[in-house]
Amino acid sequence: MDKILRINMGPEGAPSMKEEGPGDYAGMGGRGMTSAIIAREVPPLCHPLSAENKLVIAPGLLSGTTAAMSGRLSVGCKSPLTGGIKESNAGGQAAQVLARLGYAAIVLEGKPKDDATYKIVINKDGVKIETDDSLKLLGNYALVDKMKAAYGDKMTCLSIGPAGERKMAAASIAVTDMEQRPTRHCGRGGVGAVMGSKGVKAIVLDDTGCSMRAPKDPDKFKEANKKWVAGLRKHPVTGEGLPAYGTNVLTNVLSEAGGYPTNNFSRGSFEGASKISGETQAELENARGGEGSATHGCHRGCIIRCSGTFYDKNGNFLTKQPEYETVWAHGGNCGIDDLDAIAYIDRLDDDFGLDTIEMGATVGVAMEAGLAKFGDAEAATNLVKEVGEGTPLGRILGSGAAVTGKVFGVERVPVVKGQAMPAYDPRAVQGIGVTYATSTMGADHTAGYAVATNILKVGGDVDPLKPEGQIELSRNLQIATAAVDATGMCLFIAFAVLDQPETFQALIDMLNAFYGLELTADDVTELGKSILKNEREFNAAAGFTQEHDRLPRFFQTEKLPPHDITFGVTDQELDTMFNW
Amino acid sequence: MDKILRINMGPEGAPSMKEEGPGDYAGMGGRGMTSAIIAREVPPLCHPLSAENKLVIAPGLLSGTTAAMSGRLSVGCKSPLTGGIKESNAGGQAAQVLARLGYAAIVLEGKPKDDATYKIVINKDGVKIETDDSLKLLGNYALVDKMKAAYGDKMTCLSIGPAGERKMAAASIAVTDMEQRPTRHCGRGGVGAVMGSKGVKAIVLDDTGCSMRAPKDPDKFKEANKKWVAGLRKHPVTGEGLPAYGTNVLTNVLSEAGGYPTNNFSRGSFEGASKISGETQAELENARGGEGSATHGCHRGCIIRCSGTFYDKNGNFLTKQPEYETVWAHGGNCGIDDLDAIAYIDRLDDDFGLDTIEMGATVGVAMEAGLAKFGDAEAATNLVKEVGEGTPLGRILGSGAAVTGKVFGVERVPVVKGQAMPAYDPRAVQGIGVTYATSTMGADHTAGYAVATNILKVGGDVDPLKPEGQIELSRNLQIATAAVDATGMCLFIAFAVLDQPETFQALIDMLNAFYGLELTADDVTELGKSILKNEREFNAAAGFTQEHDRLPRFFQTEKLPPHDITFGVTDQELDTMFNW
Repeated sequence: MDKILRINMGPEGAPSMKEEGPGDYAGMGGRGMTSAIIAREVPPLCHPLSAENKLVIAPGLLSGTTAAMSGRLSVGCKSPLTGGIKESNAGGQAAQVLARLGYAAIVLEGKPKDDATYKIVINKDGVKIETDDSLKLLGNYALVDKMKAAYGDKMTCLSIGPAGERKMAAASIAVTDMEQRPTRHCGRGGVGAVMGSKGVKAIVLDDTGCSMRAPKDPDKFKEANKKWVAGLRKHPVTGEGLPAYGTNVLTNVLSEAGGYPTNNFSRGSFEGASKISGETQAELENARGGEGSATHGCHRGCIIRCSGTFYDKNGNFLTKQPEYETVWAHGGNCGIDDLDAIAYIDRLDDDFGLDTIEMGATVGVAMEAGLAKFGDAEAATNLVKEVGEGTPLGRILGSGAAVTGKVFGVERVPVVKGQAMPAYDPRAVQGIGVTYATSTMGADHTAGYAVATNILKVGGDVDPLKPEGQIELSRNLQIATAAVDATGMCLFIAFAVLDQPETFQALIDMLNAFYGLELTADDVTELGKSILKNEREFNAAAGFTQEHDRLPRFFQTEKLPPHDITFGVTDQELDTMFNW
Repeated sequence: MDKILRINMGPEGAPSMKEEGPGDYAGMGGRGMTSAIIAREVPPLCHPLSAENKLVIAPGLLSGTTAAMSGRLSVGCKSPLTGGIKESNAGGQAAQVLARLGYAAIVLEGKPKDDATYKIVINKDGVKIETDDSLKLLGNYALVDKMKAAYGDKMTCLSIGPAGERKMAAASIAVTDMEQRPTRHCGRGGVGAVMGSKGVKAIVLDDTGCSMRAPKDPDKFKEANKKWVAGLRKHPVTGEGLPAYGTNVLTNVLSEAGGYPTNNFSRGSFEGASKISGETQAELENARGGEGSATHGCHRGCIIRCSGTFYDKNGNFLTKQPEYETVWAHGGNCGIDDLDAIAYIDRLDDDFGLDTIEMGATVGVAMEAGLAKFGDAEAATNLVKEVGEGTPLGRILGSGAAVTGKVFGVERVPVVKGQAMPAYDPRAVQGIGVTYATSTMGADHTAGYAVATNILKVGGDVDPLKPEGQIELSRNLQIATAAVDATGMCLFIAFAVLDQPETFQALIDMLNAFYGLELTADDVTELGKSILKNEREFNAAAGFTQEHDRLPRFFQTEKLPPHDITFGVTDQELDTMFNW
């Protein structure tokens, strides 16, 4: 995994490509790789949809190995949603396959002069770039079916739906899962629009004939991986909670904690929570039978197995088991307590190629604007369908919550740096509020998941309702997360790593055994800091200041029931986040 | 003119109001007043449509006096379009009337809890605030007709159309002219949306029974005003060019100079320029007869008289003679060379309450996105009608060029700080490019009209195609303009003031005679600087950095025909703008 493949979509006639060694990017992976390339090579003030922007697709440092949980893919660019740097991260098969094909990164550059639709096919024999206008405006499901028919049941597909082709700022890049379904998405920040601006509809990968990546010290690596797996299996969240109910196990927890944003962030508990909780969802899936009753991984090598399958009332496959944030976004945030409706919208989002968090938050803002009533699942579904059709209303909604709020003159718009907040209200989970405010990514729970320590009491116990201790908590998590995002590891490993020093050590041991290094925990911290530094510098040069590291004012002026609390971390405290 | 009227629209039931002395704002006027109040009283990070924002309406220091040209009104707020501070400036009767009523400022604060429609009526007997839901969504023309019927032919009206009520970021505040028509607009920056967010549809003013404001030294004042008038009459631009053809005298000039942005800033000369020039317009108006053949002022006390009247083919009043920037925005910028069509769109903009510059630039971006063909006047008209109707597409367009570009994924979007550029391409008129980039207001030709010296050779001669000298030129003009905007003087006086030192002195003499001061030219410069300083500090606290003082990248990467030139002033040079 030491090649960088650069494809320039710009040249008249046909794209050009070259493969090169890693050069200055040697030893980088995942978010470390994407953020380094973007920070060094993309003009910070360029238009995100211009030829000057680049789309970097990178597996993690341990992707393509036998290390458990190493299948996360990073996609980076200047974001059309935030205007800042972006790393968007997904599971599915692509990271493992890409790494085994030997690529540390694929970089899409330039911009075609025509409006042809391109697909890129990569296997052990090389890289092919072809135009195929029959793919134009296909949904991700139909697209993947076509690719399966053409390239067989071993292929993995990265693709965009109509949203990405229309360059909508909420557009995602879909990654196929173990069942070859386009259910895992690099959702956040409009990375699909950047892929669309490059004219690329699909990237088909096949690692048939390629070997597993080989560690420098196979025995030590195997040993460390064993401890790693044992550690993950031992922890109650990664060993029990997530496998049993998937991420949606959080719905009841957050609603009971008063931190579940309801009806566009106007309340912190949802009366319909129990109807859409993970527990109810599991019961429903079990009752409907089929493979739905068993959880599984989203990629080869996953042992947490938080994925599931959602069947409709007739027992037909509808979508993957919707994640907690999706169930929240299209559920409680819109006052909707109907799991079938939520799952159907999840399917639409995946098919159109849309970030479920951004779309749910956007529908919430649209409801606030009076376009639909809170709780009206049919109206919400129709709004999302407008996005798929590309109507003017759909264009607005597909541009995300910030633009929708602007277009309809709405004041209560839950975004930071233009990106919608996920499923945790920063007034009742103040640590996550700090992460939302200060992350280089815009509002992003995965950038420093303080919910773990605020609510789940993993990695310590910091009172979610008080400002004390939240800065330090978020800082440590943001640094650790940046490092984890470089390894290709699923972020859920953090639960075990935070609580179990020996499991963290096993991760370091794997890296050392694989690369022949002698990294310490401090080195991992330094890696995280260096990634954040790259990202912060890019954002500063793109015009971001400490005034952008703020929550919208209403979190300070409107009290959130039931705790009747506002966000209490001061601006001055927020500005100490990156003093390390 | 020493009272400040504060109206709080927030209290449940009915708005409250209080009149107070000028306090710390004593001696301020126009933009000096609006920017001081906004900078001091409005939280820079507040939502522009929130209760925390304020709308400040202020006549100039010499408004309400016999001084010629003193009828400009300043309206300030945090802008929904740019997110920064805003002063939007219009002619019409309001400044003179407000000043004679004794008000240095009206400040609308808070936000009603209901969605009632309010009107405010101010005359010598006092202030009345009433709800009147029959005014809801009226166009400005119908609204003014109703106010005339109710309050007589002496009333002056400030109002918003449906665009402001819908809180669109391109919404203007209309000011009635000498014929009681809503043709003069505080157009830029979405000030109409802020008035809409306060629930105020109309402010009716009547100064019947009020006296002209009296100078401290009437004789000196009269003497200075005499010199002032003579100076304005003597200069070829203010004495001949503007009275003969209005501002549209510039169409041929700019197109010949290669600095006339055509088809959404893709060319610098318009083949249809002569068909929509001021000369052709004057001919048309003369041929159609009526009052259209004579120019006149937009407010009492105007002696430049650049206003005219546009009659349709049947000789019926259609709109005021469209300004140069309007003719450009809906004309050459959209490839349209039909004066009747342009005038009709101007009428629509005035009626809906929209900034003609923002709307024309937005239609240009929409044409770039493929929503209509360049040159298709009917399609352009229909797009503007969508805005009036408030359809989803109309909502997008009414949000301005930046949002429209974002929603439709367009790269060539001519905005700075979210505000659309007016009728001068910064590549072929580099001085105005410097003003666009660095102004506190976003792209705004009136903030430092370097076109005067680049193209018209007023106030010196700086080559428009070269970067040399543009920073100093724009700096001096921005400082001078801020000061002029505080006096209530029409900016067109600058032509005479720049070329004729004795005319500048006459202005200073008037201020001194009126207020009993001993200001020098240096003091006027200091006034300008202090206003810009207030504005810059607000913007910095709202998150603006030097990276926001930039033109969009395409002005550096795309050459503008016919000169095949890019914008040549470097970022480093731009950053020296405010080093004084």
